[in-house]
Amino acid sequence: MSQSQIPVAVLGATGSVGQRFISLLEDHPWFKVVALAASDRSAGQKYSKATRWVLDTPMPEYAKDMVIVPANTDAVQAKIVFSALHTEIANELEPAFAKAGAAVCSNASSYRRGEDVPLLLPEINAEHVQLIKQQRKNKGWSGCIVTNPNCTSTGLTIALKVLDNEFGVKKIFATSLQALSGAGYPGVPSLDIMDNVIPNVANGGEEEKVEWEPRKMLGKFVEDKITLADMVFSVHTNRVAVIDGHTVCASVQLDKSVEPEVAIQALRDYKAKPSARDLPSAPRPVIEVRDEADRPQPRLDRLAGKGMTTVVGRVRRDPIFDLKFVVLSHNTIRGAAGASIYNAELLVSEKLL
Amino acid sequence: MSQSQIPVAVLGATGSVGQRFISLLEDHPWFKVVALAASDRSAGQKYSKATRWVLDTPMPEYAKDMVIVPANTDAVQAKIVFSALHTEIANELEPAFAKAGAAVCSNASSYRRGEDVPLLLPEINAEHVQLIKQQRKNKGWSGCIVTNPNCTSTGLTIALKVLDNEFGVKKIFATSLQALSGAGYPGVPSLDIMDNVIPNVANGGEEEKVEWEPRKMLGKFVEDKITLADMVFSVHTNRVAVIDGHTVCASVQLDKSVEPEVAIQALRDYKAKPSARDLPSAPRPVIEVRDEADRPQPRLDRLAGKGMTTVVGRVRRDPIFDLKFVVLSHNTIRGAAGASIYNAELLVSEKLL
Amino acid sequence: MSQSQIPVAVLGATGSVGQRFISLLEDHPWFKVVALAASDRSAGQKYSKATRWVLDTPMPEYAKDMVIVPANTDAVQAKIVFSALHTEIANELEPAFAKAGAAVCSNASSYRRGEDVPLLLPEINAEHVQLIKQQRKNKGWSGCIVTNPNCTSTGLTIALKVLDNEFGVKKIFATSLQALSGAGYPGVPSLDIMDNVIPNVANGGEEEKVEWEPRKMLGKFVEDKITLADMVFSVHTNRVAVIDGHTVCASVQLDKSVEPEVAIQALRDYKAKPSARDLPSAPRPVIEVRDEADRPQPRLDRLAGKGMTTVVGRVRRDPIFDLKFVVLSHNTIRGAAGASIYNAELLVSEKLL
Amino acid sequence: MSQSQIPVAVLGATGSVGQRFISLLEDHPWFKVVALAASDRSAGQKYSKATRWVLDTPMPEYAKDMVIVPANTDAVQAKIVFSALHTEIANELEPAFAKAGAAVCSNASSYRRGEDVPLLLPEINAEHVQLIKQQRKNKGWSGCIVTNPNCTSTGLTIALKVLDNEFGVKKIFATSLQALSGAGYPGVPSLDIMDNVIPNVANGGEEEKVEWEPRKMLGKFVEDKITLADMVFSVHTNRVAVIDGHTVCASVQLDKSVEPEVAIQALRDYKAKPSARDLPSAPRPVIEVRDEADRPQPRLDRLAGKGMTTVVGRVRRDPIFDLKFVVLSHNTIRGAAGASIYNAELLVSEKLL
Repeated sequence: MSQSQIPVAVLGATGSVGQRFISLLEDHPWFKVVALAASDRSAGQKYSKATRWVLDTPMPEYAKDMVIVPANTDAVQAKIVFSALHTEIANELEPAFAKAGAAVCSNASSYRRGEDVPLLLPEINAEHVQLIKQQRKNKGWSGCIVTNPNCTSTGLTIALKVLDNEFGVKKIFATSLQALSGAGYPGVPSLDIMDNVIPNVANGGEEEKVEWEPRKMLGKFVEDKITLADMVFSVHTNRVAVIDGHTVCASVQLDKSVEPEVAIQALRDYKAKPSARDLPSAPRPVIEVRDEADRPQPRLDRLAGKGMTTVVGRVRRDPIFDLKFVVLSHNTIRGAAGASIYNAELLVSEKLL
Repeated sequence: MSQSQIPVAVLGATGSVGQRFISLLEDHPWFKVVALAASDRSAGQKYSKATRWVLDTPMPEYAKDMVIVPANTDAVQAKIVFSALHTEIANELEPAFAKAGAAVCSNASSYRRGEDVPLLLPEINAEHVQLIKQQRKNKGWSGCIVTNPNCTSTGLTIALKVLDNEFGVKKIFATSLQALSGAGYPGVPSLDIMDNVIPNVANGGEEEKVEWEPRKMLGKFVEDKITLADMVFSVHTNRVAVIDGHTVCASVQLDKSVEPEVAIQALRDYKAKPSARDLPSAPRPVIEVRDEADRPQPRLDRLAGKGMTTVVGRVRRDPIFDLKFVVLSHNTIRGAAGASIYNAELLVSEKLL
Repeated sequence: MSQSQIPVAVLGATGSVGQRFISLLEDHPWFKVVALAASDRSAGQKYSKATRWVLDTPMPEYAKDMVIVPANTDAVQAKIVFSALHTEIANELEPAFAKAGAAVCSNASSYRRGEDVPLLLPEINAEHVQLIKQQRKNKGWSGCIVTNPNCTSTGLTIALKVLDNEFGVKKIFATSLQALSGAGYPGVPSLDIMDNVIPNVANGGEEEKVEWEPRKMLGKFVEDKITLADMVFSVHTNRVAVIDGHTVCASVQLDKSVEPEVAIQALRDYKAKPSARDLPSAPRPVIEVRDEADRPQPRLDRLAGKGMTTVVGRVRRDPIFDLKFVVLSHNTIRGAAGASIYNAELLVSEKLL
Repeated sequence: MSQSQIPVAVLGATGSVGQRFISLLEDHPWFKVVALAASDRSAGQKYSKATRWVLDTPMPEYAKDMVIVPANTDAVQAKIVFSALHTEIANELEPAFAKAGAAVCSNASSYRRGEDVPLLLPEINAEHVQLIKQQRKNKGWSGCIVTNPNCTSTGLTIALKVLDNEFGVKKIFATSLQALSGAGYPGVPSLDIMDNVIPNVANGGEEEKVEWEPRKMLGKFVEDKITLADMVFSVHTNRVAVIDGHTVCASVQLDKSVEPEVAIQALRDYKAKPSARDLPSAPRPVIEVRDEADRPQPRLDRLAGKGMTTVVGRVRRDPIFDLKFVVLSHNTIRGAAGASIYNAELLVSEKLL
């Protein structure tokens, strides 16, 4: 079977992350979308009828006339299943698909904390993907579940990985300014965000995720298990009037002090491991560092590297810790659908399907 | 002379802070606006002709037909002079007015760092106003200059004052989400902020101000001088698509650890000193603490206490330091024009005119 | 019974129009709010607990601790009942209240087209209120139902009234740019309106309302019935990213051509009939005409006359018809809650309670 | 000379329309950018240094290191010169370039009304390009000036062309809701448009342009001159909080009445003349008609046909005239830079360089 014919499905295809999957999978060199699954309410309808498309690029032609199927293992036959499901539904459905033999590449938070579930950003912890061998042994699945982190954790963790490699990261203060698309559709009412900021996201779960998930991704993978990185995070999350692109302001304490210029050079020089570097969705480059005093900005920088590159700016001394900087990441591309697709590509190249 | 007839003037009357002065001085119980001064370009015109009014409350009737005068000590005869001047112009003009006998209540940053210039938030450091005796001695002025802090320092410093009084404040991480009106008019181009965040304010001076000004205001005033408070600040500033109201996310290290509930009670119980408490512009209350998980929000909370109250919310444990919380303050009322007027009222009640 | 003690109730008190009623009724000189009614889900809770307050002025103190009652005639005992109900619910409940003796002042569209139901803007058609005598005769009610028009019809109709009085109005093209608060809460999703326009409102009913309602209000009231005004409207409605304030661009064909200056003078000179002129909520003035080339603007002009004044600008020749102009009206004050309250005041002063 | 090597230049390269030219000319199959010209202030600097890039796609690599030259005929040597100049500067410079032998494809309004200057939208009036033969004869130029219309005229005129062909257009009421990018950079201050509408564009010139330009483009080209189309326009222009994409609501009187379905079919069936159909920038399709009740919308539809397609929706009966509909067009692509490039392609294919 040629790679260009790996059949894939999207679960939760009508929602905003599902739409991003469908958009990014258009013309994918390896994957062919064979099923779009959604709630029973939508099943049986043409995708173009059932979906309120919210992206600013048009709905791909290939999807328009596909008939939506129910999200179950009978109706969905695919080697790789992309999950844009809500947590409660993912809780049940993802294991069912893994048991049935599918590689579930999930954007849901349900299994991110599972001891044998990889939480992946291939450009920084591709080796964690091997954890699915343990997962298959534990669960007896022929398929598997691999996850990508919360969209706010994503860019921050990638930047921290480089700093941790080079200088050791100990403590992190991070404040996010998050985009509206992170809340899905209909999501945030316009009256709540026009001329306003909401100093909280998802009523509280978000900060806990961003304080924990990076520790798993930056953790060591030894003898079939991940040891959490020995770091402490303090996170404030905010919702702002931006459509796409999460901005994070971070202050970081390092093991050894470092000049900002040296940190900038390290960020610029960073390369993903060969196994993750040349995949179709790999960010090119992994990190872009801007020199201007007022960048990155979501509207101008979120599409760097087709939305997969992490953009860093304002790297400077921190008066309390060592470094301050700003990180920007496209929350529904690098931070959601693009992340799951990149993970699936890693599974393919590592021959773990 | 009855208090209701103290003649006051506004310098920089046509700009956005000048407009806020004119709006807040309508029906002021003590002050009567006798002169509106602006650049030579506007001088000689009626205020309503020369001004592009940007506030959402109508231009007060009293101002409409006043003829703008040039900003010099010959043209402006007033006991109190409110300065909404740009820094470079304030550098020159404010001392000239102080020398000529006026009490200059300034929103400009020019003299905030002066050793004998009070940097005032009357609800927390009213006693610093006595520094003008030293100032008059040093300079030989019959008038004086008193200043209010940067709009982003304002709310944060008020909240910190309470925590410092009760528990001792040592270190502060603070990230701001600042409103557009802070940049004046025309200020931020719409193409720069629609669907966007600018991770910097005023190209860099802002963070330094917020890292220094609170230390002066929270400092001890002993023997004719201020000793800076022994605290360290690390500040990130951002511009967001909000018209009025600066939000600040803060993490604070204290001398002694404290339960969030205890800190909340202290914030709620705080009262200004009697000398600052009953002034016309005094905030009522000084601090409002919101219990909801998603407050304060600029659009909903900026007008608390007629825009003079500092609103605090989300007081909770910090995983690295002791407490995390969010502070909101109206940047052109409590953080600018209202601040200078409150300072002037303190001068009057302390008989320091 | 003194006027200041007329007991009133608000039905649909927790919604966005309900909130505006509660805000406007604070310190009303004649009315005292004795009941806040909402859905059964909210009944029994304190108003401050049950309500997600969306106005930028704080929730009035008087309302905070009132316990919400169910919206039925047993639970709600009031002389005047303000209805902010959804259409389907208003269909049933409003007649029940009218039957039970209450004067129902409704913002709902349910009965606006009723032959014996006044559709009122007191500053232009106060005499239509007499229609309730007919209504009471027809229905056998001791109470009554009076209605105010759709928020987009409101300002336009007021301006047209003056032009019709003076010059005769025959045809009207009108395009609206409507605020988000007109859709209630949660209303329009932020992803639908950020960096966007929706060229339709309420999926289609809106244009028909604006093409019909003004004809009733501008109609003659003779012998117990209203004859629709002989005019034709063509209306386009749009939703834009504005919180409050509906803007309407209008082109009008008149019976006799007129210089713009003459029309402006007529608009400025217009006065409500004495019966409607001195009521507490009467607009002061009825119409404000702006001379600037770029006014009215919603953010700057919506609060003219405390949100009750209709603001007109850009009155100029129309190349096809006679006049072009722009009308602005605050959609939740003059166009909704303030309208119903003004209607209630008319009932009181006309001794029609 | 192969077409892929036609040397072109951009005048006014650093502004927002200039940026769009540079973006659209990346990888153009026929044109090669050989010079970027701007004001003397920028001349001599690298493009990436001199330019505040405001597009949400990254600055093309090819432009970054180009050194900006002054906008004069000595410094700029190119067969085709794209003009994104301000009117006053275009007044002088464009004839100089035409005299020097360049084909000036201009987005400026300076010469749109010239009797021998084509005002072109190739998909509807490609034959007007022949007017440059007359122009060359009159002026003695070896080059020429061809222009594209105002961005608000563009989409409206394209839709009207189809209706005029099929049913005859007599009168048009049109109200625009225009994007911010139409005002250039810095353009509209954010305080002017946040939570607001400005019921006027460019302080008044805009409406006159949209009332006149379509008449020229829809006019007959006979015996070396254009006869203006016999139509009357009444136009209201508004600025709204949208980044890109002008929406126009139109009501049209036809020579013969027509069912909306018939008009929709005509709009869908329309094809450009062969000479304009297969050019690299030709819209594919010329017009897209949306069936949904709430489309077109700027954020969702402006990139139809890579920003060159005109999107029409809500075609329905008009109560006064014959048809109502909504038109959307990308104002800086189809309405500005893309328009001039499409015009240049027509010059090439018609062998008029």
